[in-house]
Amino acid sequence: MPTLDRDGDVFVLDIGDGENRFHPDWLAAVNGLLDEVEQAEGPKALVTTATGKFFSNGLDLDWLVANADRADWYVETVQALFARVLALPFVTVGALQGHTFAAGAMLSLAHDLRVMRADRGFWCLPEADINIPFTPGMSALIQARLAPQTAHAAMVTARRYGGLDALAAGIVDATADEAGLRTAAIELARAQAAKAGPTVGTIKERMYAPVLETLTEKGASLG
Amino acid sequence: MPTLDRDGDVFVLDIGDGENRFHPDWLAAVNGLLDEVEQAEGPKALVTTATGKFFSNGLDLDWLVANADRADWYVETVQALFARVLALPFVTVGALQGHTFAAGAMLSLAHDLRVMRADRGFWCLPEADINIPFTPGMSALIQARLAPQTAHAAMVTARRYGGLDALAAGIVDATADEAGLRTAAIELARAQAAKAGPTVGTIKERMYAPVLETLTEKGASLG
Amino acid sequence: MPTLDRDGDVFVLDIGDGENRFHPDWLAAVNGLLDEVEQAEGPKALVTTATGKFFSNGLDLDWLVANADRADWYVETVQALFARVLALPFVTVGALQGHTFAAGAMLSLAHDLRVMRADRGFWCLPEADINIPFTPGMSALIQARLAPQTAHAAMVTARRYGGLDALAAGIVDATADEAGLRTAAIELARAQAAKAGPTVGTIKERMYAPVLETLTEKGASLG
Repeated sequence: MPTLDRDGDVFVLDIGDGENRFHPDWLAAVNGLLDEVEQAEGPKALVTTATGKFFSNGLDLDWLVANADRADWYVETVQALFARVLALPFVTVGALQGHTFAAGAMLSLAHDLRVMRADRGFWCLPEADINIPFTPGMSALIQARLAPQTAHAAMVTARRYGGLDALAAGIVDATADEAGLRTAAIELARAQAAKAGPTVGTIKERMYAPVLETLTEKGASLG
Repeated sequence: MPTLDRDGDVFVLDIGDGENRFHPDWLAAVNGLLDEVEQAEGPKALVTTATGKFFSNGLDLDWLVANADRADWYVETVQALFARVLALPFVTVGALQGHTFAAGAMLSLAHDLRVMRADRGFWCLPEADINIPFTPGMSALIQARLAPQTAHAAMVTARRYGGLDALAAGIVDATADEAGLRTAAIELARAQAAKAGPTVGTIKERMYAPVLETLTEKGASLG
Repeated sequence: MPTLDRDGDVFVLDIGDGENRFHPDWLAAVNGLLDEVEQAEGPKALVTTATGKFFSNGLDLDWLVANADRADWYVETVQALFARVLALPFVTVGALQGHTFAAGAMLSLAHDLRVMRADRGFWCLPEADINIPFTPGMSALIQARLAPQTAHAAMVTARRYGGLDALAAGIVDATADEAGLRTAAIELARAQAAKAGPTVGTIKERMYAPVLETLTEKGASLG
């Protein structure tokens, strides 16, 4: 399950050591830890990372199949997390140490910056292959954060990007080797910790106002 | 006139061996061949190309001058073709073997991917030079598919891009020499043929919902 | 104070030799000189530059603090200048010979093309550091002209871009050394002078219709 650590002004959220799919319990845990970060006073920034082979494989499809009657609640809750991270009033850095797929890749895009392991792991939106269309909110998030050519290739062809490909396509802002990844992300975040406060929140809210509106609309569905 | 061939799962639409301007008969022929592709069952993808010096020079301005009373119908019909190609429920690749100008360039942008001949031929939006403003729908299409800097330079300065320039600017996704171009496009398309189906159609419809709406508005005009 | 010169078809607007902040007198002077350029007949293009260490540091915060009751008028007037430059019916080139900060950087983005000195000076949006959120109009302008990744890094992290960094990020279209900068910008502009006219104005108005609407909304405020 997700855990929260602190390294000076930088909070480090580790979202798990498995596939880190978005089970309702996982969602509640992540939101609870984000509450802690939001409540902290003073300079701060956030690094989100995970342990092991996966950053996150996204939606918990097993749970979703078993709880089809709660599908709309589930999609709304996931989208609310994307919206929350996208507009957090401090700087956020994703440290993508492993496979970052589907809604896991979208969560990474909700962060301000991303650092990806250079030599292993893929960033990928496999939805076109697994027959799950992006919701309008997901589509808006991805298209707001990626260049048009990159968003199109990622969303329509389900291209898998290794670290260097992701850097070249502007999906991530830097790469690092396995040993240096978390440290690199923490140092990037630390340099931005003084920006924590309502202004940077307002800047992000205004930049992504239409995305936030679409992500928080009632009635989102994967259909 | 346009012809349709098939290479395994890949349909190859050759839009002509002249300037391939969008005469009403040409538009009807292309739409008829797209009907055939849409009706085919199973895995499929589309390569659109042409033969000779031109991919397409776009609007048939001679016909338009001679049929000024049908100008609105004409623009609506051209825009409907852009909208149709943009949202086709299978992957589409433009193989730009020759000059790709004006509405011909816009048609290329409606495809998912583009491969351009590296050594000869230009991709260009000459509208600012020939005094024809882009309709709001055309503008929306171009701006949705190109990075802001590229869209601005292409639309405002009418810059001509050779193959390597177009690749660097993100207008095309790959280049090839003359002999290898059609094959390269077919192989790119073949790799995506399994994606044919309603999901990829929905993904594109949602990505480009505002563009599709603007392209299919009644009352479009070049004025 | 701002001055206007002419080099053949190219008007050269020098916005000053100080910090070139947007004092109301400066705004009136720039608008008056733009009137002159607009009224000139025939082929034309505009280069906007400055003299000395600064292109512009943007808003006149001293004046604004002393005239808080006129803050809304002031923001509307600044935004009206951005909107005006963004849609001028001829090609405009910013020659960024010195520091280009905050609203000065936004003014540069309202031009069609930008050339920046390669070896000294920074382009920077420091708003996140100085606790002034972008208005929705400012945000719309910046996001319409920069790739998503660049806009985000510039707006949220207040990154300072030297000339070569700005070129790599697509913020400027070319760099030059100090001695060659103004000439390079004038030659770029001269090549586009024949485009002056209503068509290029319409092209820009349609490309940036939502931005122009947001920039010219009443009730803009820095709050």
